[in-house]
Amino acid sequence: MAAVLSSEAERRVRDSFARQGFMKKLGVEFHRLDYGICELTVAFDESMTQQHGFFHAGVTTTLADNAAGYAAYSIMPENSTVLTTEFKMNLLAPARGPKLLARAEIIKPGRTLIVVRSDVYTIDHDQETHIATMLATEMCLMDKEDKPRA
Amino acid sequence: MAAVLSSEAERRVRDSFARQGFMKKLGVEFHRLDYGICELTVAFDESMTQQHGFFHAGVTTTLADNAAGYAAYSIMPENSTVLTTEFKMNLLAPARGPKLLARAEIIKPGRTLIVVRSDVYTIDHDQETHIATMLATEMCLMDKEDKPRA
Amino acid sequence: MAAVLSSEAERRVRDSFARQGFMKKLGVEFHRLDYGICELTVAFDESMTQQHGFFHAGVTTTLADNAAGYAAYSIMPENSTVLTTEFKMNLLAPARGPKLLARAEIIKPGRTLIVVRSDVYTIDHDQETHIATMLATEMCLMDKEDKPRA
Amino acid sequence: MAAVLSSEAERRVRDSFARQGFMKKLGVEFHRLDYGICELTVAFDESMTQQHGFFHAGVTTTLADNAAGYAAYSIMPENSTVLTTEFKMNLLAPARGPKLLARAEIIKPGRTLIVVRSDVYTIDHDQETHIATMLATEMCLMDKEDKPRA
Repeated sequence: MAAVLSSEAERRVRDSFARQGFMKKLGVEFHRLDYGICELTVAFDESMTQQHGFFHAGVTTTLADNAAGYAAYSIMPENSTVLTTEFKMNLLAPARGPKLLARAEIIKPGRTLIVVRSDVYTIDHDQETHIATMLATEMCLMDKEDKPRA
Repeated sequence: MAAVLSSEAERRVRDSFARQGFMKKLGVEFHRLDYGICELTVAFDESMTQQHGFFHAGVTTTLADNAAGYAAYSIMPENSTVLTTEFKMNLLAPARGPKLLARAEIIKPGRTLIVVRSDVYTIDHDQETHIATMLATEMCLMDKEDKPRA
Repeated sequence: MAAVLSSEAERRVRDSFARQGFMKKLGVEFHRLDYGICELTVAFDESMTQQHGFFHAGVTTTLADNAAGYAAYSIMPENSTVLTTEFKMNLLAPARGPKLLARAEIIKPGRTLIVVRSDVYTIDHDQETHIATMLATEMCLMDKEDKPRA
Repeated sequence: MAAVLSSEAERRVRDSFARQGFMKKLGVEFHRLDYGICELTVAFDESMTQQHGFFHAGVTTTLADNAAGYAAYSIMPENSTVLTTEFKMNLLAPARGPKLLARAEIIKPGRTLIVVRSDVYTIDHDQETHIATMLATEMCLMDKEDKPRA
């Protein structure tokens, strides 16, 4: 994975992300985007919680899944779109802290299917705690637009 | 799963749900709650979308996971709390439509671990389309409160 | 899934199965093959065991995975081969009994990816006990031979 | 995971392994056993194959699952037994080569549940090829014997 993210791919990923209303709703932001790597963060507030007052697993999973999708999309060709076909999530510890960070990295690139690992951490000052790990399969669809049909 | 949901369990599940800020943020509602069965719904709007304009997989997964958790919690004892330990999600079709419904049902009840299947459908008028299926493992923690520590 | 299994597909699936040395080693047999459905069985003996003397999870998973693959292959076109890309297995109960049966059924057919549920039961006289459930993604590779390269 | 494998744990794991008839049938051997880490290998022959002549996914999964189970068991207390509750496997590349190696490492130790990553490689001379990755949840059962009931 030594290749460099092209400016075309960077723009393509960021435009796609910007079309996701759900990212705006949650306030998710890019932390890092490289060739085959994507990191996303989101900040805690009361609207993010499950019943114990921690980040809801739905927030954690959304972050992990989206990081996985954009890690994969960053290595796909120009006239393509990305689709998550499946993922598996293990929740390792309570998601307690002011910030979540998801870090996704490609395990196996393929022309059609790309397998990605996505790990989620809580960030509290300088301390990272590993709170979830995901294995995801992303699919490359060629000659399909990565946006709503007109 | 012929047993009947007790009023204690119903109240306990609904109180737990009411403590989840993330459910309020998304506007998720109960559609059905029975012994070992939970159905949740959420309505579409622009703030729910991924880049093609459909429900984001994060919304779909949140709904499936929460239905699974409360299906499991509905059969747990009074002084317990529920924790999702892991799940696997297959996204079967685009989540396009005015409404999502997740329907979770226990496959295997256990004292500590409960395995749940949770299926998600888009609902458009009278038409249900099966768009995702989840297998989840829920854990029962005894003598722990199902709310934030004081 | 109302379509009928063609004689071409039946022959193709059975020929593929016959090329799997691992099926011979374990003594796996077809119990049922239909359009989108496959059932396989295997008999217990000491060489199948894990440390408590039950069927090893490796045997259970092999059976579930192979049933899933052939359920999918039964609806694929003639000049194709099948590949399992991933699966998730929940082990629900000890695999104790004289016989295992895996029953696989397609949840979502697709041109490239087919999602299959595969359930495993122990069979003891007339009693079936549900001991495992799998969700698998099978891939159709076109214009590839379903056998070793010459 | 800096702790050292005790001689008690080493003996306990090796005795458990020796009780698994399925390991003998496949000819699986220990390659490495440490505190929270287990590596197993198996050699190729015709009886291990799927239809293209490569290692069957059932063999690959058996190896990955067993390595995961014993990585977890190596950190469990003396009067316990280990149970795989679930795993997810992504098959990344054809399992072609003279030997398979599974390498399992604990991601998250817990008193009841232990989450393990298990990666499988084909070994051909000095070349390792990553052909599969598993995420597994292992359960510690206290005061249960790790062998058949008398």
